[in-house]
Amino acid sequence: MKLSVILAHPNKQSFNHAIAETAVDSLKQNGHDVVFHDLYDEGFNPVLPWDEIPERAALSPELEAYCGEIAAADGIIIVHPNWWGQPPAILKGWVDRVFRPGVAYQFLEGDKGEGVPIGLLKARAAIVFNTSNTDREREVKAFGDPLETLWKNCIFDLCGVKTFYRRMFSVVVTSSAKQRSKWLEEVQGAVSRYFPANAAKSDVPH
Amino acid sequence: MKLSVILAHPNKQSFNHAIAETAVDSLKQNGHDVVFHDLYDEGFNPVLPWDEIPERAALSPELEAYCGEIAAADGIIIVHPNWWGQPPAILKGWVDRVFRPGVAYQFLEGDKGEGVPIGLLKARAAIVFNTSNTDREREVKAFGDPLETLWKNCIFDLCGVKTFYRRMFSVVVTSSAKQRSKWLEEVQGAVSRYFPANAAKSDVPH
Repeated sequence: MKLSVILAHPNKQSFNHAIAETAVDSLKQNGHDVVFHDLYDEGFNPVLPWDEIPERAALSPELEAYCGEIAAADGIIIVHPNWWGQPPAILKGWVDRVFRPGVAYQFLEGDKGEGVPIGLLKARAAIVFNTSNTDREREVKAFGDPLETLWKNCIFDLCGVKTFYRRMFSVVVTSSAKQRSKWLEEVQGAVSRYFPANAAKSDVPH
Repeated sequence: MKLSVILAHPNKQSFNHAIAETAVDSLKQNGHDVVFHDLYDEGFNPVLPWDEIPERAALSPELEAYCGEIAAADGIIIVHPNWWGQPPAILKGWVDRVFRPGVAYQFLEGDKGEGVPIGLLKARAAIVFNTSNTDREREVKAFGDPLETLWKNCIFDLCGVKTFYRRMFSVVVTSSAKQRSKWLEEVQGAVSRYFPANAAKSDVPH
């Protein structure tokens, strides 16, 4: 299977990097092809310009590559910290620019953009790993854990990826090395559950 | 009163621009001081770098100015389209970079960042105007209208702005000129309700 792993965190020493590396290693151990993007390291420009919005817009070769990869992915793994109940801007802009009409979704003919689009992504499953410094109870009670509906419903379900798993690790800032090590074992377990070794594409759990 | 109006849309002919202009005009007619930022026009860089995260980080003069303005604002108005249940990346990054510790919120002494911060913004009210091409029923049922909790709870309430009003205009792409004109009247009405002419700061409705 072809897997895309997308990471958005500005510090290479961060636990987010450790999560992404663990995911990449697990996927490779399971025999999958992995494309890994550290968006900060790549200097991804997250600002969607007006002339890029139309479906038939001319795209830069770099953006074409990002789009081609996500269209071809059998699975997608996203890793980012919870900043204001949302991804860091660099990752929000990756969605704005890469999840394009004709790549990630499509409106029916005659639809001016007000209808319900058809999802185009062929990925069988998406996993989102988050880190947070807010405890679980406050996240749900005070904020409603918006990252769940953002990634599950607003983005992946709309684009046709119906199998979705998300895990938010918290509280990271006060966590022990032992706790973080256990969390990385969880990452490895989840990745291998959804993208097992020698998997036929139909083996992805639903 | 000092008002900050923040707009994020890549097309100057957009209805978002009309909303922002209407808000600015209404505020000026009511005698307020208005600072208006068209983030696309200003080329705002939304990518928060690692070395900018610490509270005592050295900031560029441009970022200092954005921070000083939001700290001094008696009211804040945000205008943006609904992109994936979230603001465009350029605006998400304005929050990431401008709503800083020491400017918008503060942790209590001894808190490593895992606790509940104190809001520092002195703005008495915030208004968010959104545009969308999803009808209201689908927005709530399929997506849970995440922009409401993002702006109200995750951002403004946390930063101490307890009076909050939001209006999402939809479906914009198929709306008539007459409909859009009525929507702009609504904008004017809401702005004047929260930031009336000759208002003492205590006049903001709660």
